[in-house]
Amino acid sequence: MNQSNPEKAPRKPRAPRASKPAAAKPAPKAAAPAQPEQTRTGGESARRKPFYSRTRRAQPKAGKSGAIPMHIVPLGGLGEVGKNVTLYECQGDMLIVDCGLVFPDSDMFGVDLVIPDFTYVVQNKDRIHGVIITHGHEDHIGALPYLLKQVDLPVYATRLTIGLIKNKLEEHGLLGRTRLIEITPRRKFKLGCFTIEPIHVNHSIPDAVAFAIECPAGVVIQTGDFKIDYTPLSGGPTDIAAFAEYGKKGVLALLSDSTNAERPGFTATEKKVAQSFANLFHRADKQRIIIATFASNLYRIQQIIDLAVENGRKVAVSGRSMANNTQMALELGYLHAPEGVLIDIEQLNKYPPEKIVLITTGSQGEPLSALSRMASASHRNVRVGPGDFIIISATPIPGNEKMVTKVVNGLLLLGAEVIYESMYDVHVSGHACQEEQKLILTLTSPQYFLPVHGEYKQLKKHAMTAESLGIPAKNIHIAEIGQDIRLSADSLETGEPVPAGVVMVDGLGVGDVGSVVLRDRRHLSQDGLVIVVATVSPDGRVLAGPDLVSRGFVYVRESEELMEEARRLVLQCFERCRAERTHDWNSVKTRVRETLSAYIYRRTKRSPMILPILMEV
Amino acid sequence: MNQSNPEKAPRKPRAPRASKPAAAKPAPKAAAPAQPEQTRTGGESARRKPFYSRTRRAQPKAGKSGAIPMHIVPLGGLGEVGKNVTLYECQGDMLIVDCGLVFPDSDMFGVDLVIPDFTYVVQNKDRIHGVIITHGHEDHIGALPYLLKQVDLPVYATRLTIGLIKNKLEEHGLLGRTRLIEITPRRKFKLGCFTIEPIHVNHSIPDAVAFAIECPAGVVIQTGDFKIDYTPLSGGPTDIAAFAEYGKKGVLALLSDSTNAERPGFTATEKKVAQSFANLFHRADKQRIIIATFASNLYRIQQIIDLAVENGRKVAVSGRSMANNTQMALELGYLHAPEGVLIDIEQLNKYPPEKIVLITTGSQGEPLSALSRMASASHRNVRVGPGDFIIISATPIPGNEKMVTKVVNGLLLLGAEVIYESMYDVHVSGHACQEEQKLILTLTSPQYFLPVHGEYKQLKKHAMTAESLGIPAKNIHIAEIGQDIRLSADSLETGEPVPAGVVMVDGLGVGDVGSVVLRDRRHLSQDGLVIVVATVSPDGRVLAGPDLVSRGFVYVRESEELMEEARRLVLQCFERCRAERTHDWNSVKTRVRETLSAYIYRRTKRSPMILPILMEV
Repeated sequence: MNQSNPEKAPRKPRAPRASKPAAAKPAPKAAAPAQPEQTRTGGESARRKPFYSRTRRAQPKAGKSGAIPMHIVPLGGLGEVGKNVTLYECQGDMLIVDCGLVFPDSDMFGVDLVIPDFTYVVQNKDRIHGVIITHGHEDHIGALPYLLKQVDLPVYATRLTIGLIKNKLEEHGLLGRTRLIEITPRRKFKLGCFTIEPIHVNHSIPDAVAFAIECPAGVVIQTGDFKIDYTPLSGGPTDIAAFAEYGKKGVLALLSDSTNAERPGFTATEKKVAQSFANLFHRADKQRIIIATFASNLYRIQQIIDLAVENGRKVAVSGRSMANNTQMALELGYLHAPEGVLIDIEQLNKYPPEKIVLITTGSQGEPLSALSRMASASHRNVRVGPGDFIIISATPIPGNEKMVTKVVNGLLLLGAEVIYESMYDVHVSGHACQEEQKLILTLTSPQYFLPVHGEYKQLKKHAMTAESLGIPAKNIHIAEIGQDIRLSADSLETGEPVPAGVVMVDGLGVGDVGSVVLRDRRHLSQDGLVIVVATVSPDGRVLAGPDLVSRGFVYVRESEELMEEARRLVLQCFERCRAERTHDWNSVKTRVRETLSAYIYRRTKRSPMILPILMEV
Repeated sequence: MNQSNPEKAPRKPRAPRASKPAAAKPAPKAAAPAQPEQTRTGGESARRKPFYSRTRRAQPKAGKSGAIPMHIVPLGGLGEVGKNVTLYECQGDMLIVDCGLVFPDSDMFGVDLVIPDFTYVVQNKDRIHGVIITHGHEDHIGALPYLLKQVDLPVYATRLTIGLIKNKLEEHGLLGRTRLIEITPRRKFKLGCFTIEPIHVNHSIPDAVAFAIECPAGVVIQTGDFKIDYTPLSGGPTDIAAFAEYGKKGVLALLSDSTNAERPGFTATEKKVAQSFANLFHRADKQRIIIATFASNLYRIQQIIDLAVENGRKVAVSGRSMANNTQMALELGYLHAPEGVLIDIEQLNKYPPEKIVLITTGSQGEPLSALSRMASASHRNVRVGPGDFIIISATPIPGNEKMVTKVVNGLLLLGAEVIYESMYDVHVSGHACQEEQKLILTLTSPQYFLPVHGEYKQLKKHAMTAESLGIPAKNIHIAEIGQDIRLSADSLETGEPVPAGVVMVDGLGVGDVGSVVLRDRRHLSQDGLVIVVATVSPDGRVLAGPDLVSRGFVYVRESEELMEEARRLVLQCFERCRAERTHDWNSVKTRVRETLSAYIYRRTKRSPMILPILMEV
């Protein structure tokens, strides 16, 4: 099963850091405004010489046996669900696989989305031949606009994926200037020394592919997100024969989707969902049917359209992404609907309820989504009531359970019947479970295995699965973001890490929210703030104030005594400072802050942010 | 199965609101400081005449057939998980069942815990004969100290529950002045016109009871939290015979636990967990074993102690609540351990790892818990490493999934083996599933059914289960918090709602955080704030400033140009106001706020809170 040499190759000694700045690649000017806070503070590492400098390009250092090495540098997707980006490098040529975003954790207050730190990509932009995309989900394409604002690279993707990328680039005004190249399963293409073959895989969005990436060092297979569905609704099963062919020829490394690594068995087929839906349509014969699902799950949407046609119902869609995606998919031929079946949501009330199916966004309970608005009776076109039969065709993503519950409660309270439990088989995962992961591991029989796409616990489980199949533990590597993994037929080694991490996007700002801003937002969210303002003369006399202004601390009208006493203490502080001739305003402010903080904590057991502001006239 | 009269009784017309304040019960003085914001702003309803005034006490209004009515007023536990409090009233006598708290939702920024609004209890305190408690979990006893600070009431509970309540009252300095009366299953006691019989039930804490509450109107059974375990580890199965006896005599209403109403079948027995644990102890023969579980689950803790003894291991505990609870349970005889088995955590490293079991808090991934500290390598006594075998014996409560994942990832990264999945049967629920709920419904055969303890979706499912057993829909009532439910053999009616809702506790403040404070905290958490301060002369000349101070908005050092331009715009504002002779400072502030807000949004697509502060000298 394994082609590795039996001896563990000695670790390559770490290259000394480039000490002369002249040798380092100058940071491109254009990238400056979008550089994240963390790389700025860690400027030294950002200026580090790339591990594979141009001068060495012609003669890559080979292993003991003369094997040619390649590098894999993951910039996201490890120890997290989302933000998938992987950099490949061989003989000086580079390419990027996927370019995703991740939605912020609950402690990233006010942050809209999170993208990878692209410093290392920008540093090496002249050697990168393109970005190749496995499929059109946000965690694989969402950061593309942010990358393309910094570096101009061609993007290679399948037809539907290009459609989704186009929508995204258009929003960012990047559509005109980006080269988008359509790729097709089993049709190889070249980028530098790399030959890439896309391989059709099943997933919860059409046109998903894995990549077989061939270079002088060997073949690496990156699965992207996948599952194996022997009876998918269209497109045929994952091309397992292609994986087998590469396995036969020899695979240096496999990077495989770990999302469901904790789940034994096989992911159920989409056909099961189709059968459930058919039963539910029958059951809801006399009711309006509303189905919430992911806007990108065109298989599910096609299923619903087909059932609507069978049952003589019209189909309307609600939610911006649902409307955009269905429109695009119809144009590209990924959705099919007979003339007159699709109606505008404004026309909804012209038909009897039992002749309607409404497909909507909001299956994750997102507070601003169409379904949430229906649940809170604030949707512009849809009033939910006892006549409605609602199916939530999704499983809550960890962290979203409470939001989904809120929506379900709201819909039930309005009198609707709601199908939301897994027991009805109205949803199946888009990711491979353990048996499918074993199948791909066995077919490709890789020398090295790197579990990717998942929390650490999932990567670990996937590693254990690989070990149970006989891959030696030393050939299994759970990588970290920013790790420089050097692979050859001789050995797997890790070099010095490259700049990597998270860049937070908040409104128009990319990277201007960092740990300091977040720390303040967290502090403000917990206990609010108290501002102390005073106008003072140069010798420390208080000319106006001190005034105390608070927000998010206590309901002020009920705490007059507390605030009055606080004001008195602050005034005492000023007087004492003046008596001591302390005219250093920073010392005065510190004393005010400490006095007030201690008093407030003693009285309330709270620690609001305290901001003394002095104005000298 | 049902004893209801076949005709639907006509709804009792709503009593007109008491118009004369003199007729209303004066709000007791002592309660004022703890009154929540919402009842203050809604003062009118708080001062409303209680639905059952003293004057009517002697002659309760009977139904058509002369049936005596009673009232049930839930003050919490409906449409939520937690904060269980129910008020019973018959012929002017009142009692309270349970007095729980609920942990804050993620949007209740900075709030420590949430208790029910006790306004209605305070208004009726002279008629309340006591608080009777089903079991010692926080959602059933946690609000007792807050209630007892407002009204002095005796508390009736089983022995262990009293132990837990004592710990709680001691923390609040209430232990000396509270009457705690021990009750025993099947031993009836009287409170006013009520005769109460505690009935032993299985739950995830020992000494849990249901209550059969008998009054002139009939018998009401409130199950508390329960499940039916035919092979529990101790204490015997739920006393189903007692439920059957009452069913035979006739039950007016059943209030039953809905937590697991969505789950078909039966909850597995604790014995299954015992078997799993035995296997895992065998498997971890050469390793240190660390088990995280709920500190109140003394059955689980006893199991672990027993297995430790069998396997020649010592037992240490970590976490404050774990230490307190085990200590108390040992003293009261709810836990048993042979001499020398329990060791202090400080002695941990004196024994070989394979001779140790450590029981710890943190099974929900709580960030400050002992297990979280182990996962982040910051626990004072415990260093987790490759030799550790860790079992998380709990299921994440909805909303805690991500925290648990973080802890699991941390422990795995340290090299420990971690058992955390449901597939290992290391945990069973403490609540009844559908088949158990059916059993209790069938045994008690109530005239009216009120599902309690649960989100709306769970109450609804439980109601559907009851309907499927033949209870007429009109006799099933999904109540709301604050609803005054009037029950008699003739009818179930709802009267005018009583004051009810949530009171937030933050530090020492009870009720001083309300919707305004929370709105500000939310706003501050999303986009931070910008403060504009200026000292002005009475005629509007700017004498000092304007200074802009921001927190949680942008990283200021990187946004100098933005802030400088903002300052310039503010100065323009002041100048324009002066030119227009606008000396109304509120108008000036409004104009500054609007100008700055528009500018900042245009530049950043963010909306920080903007606080203009003017000081006049």
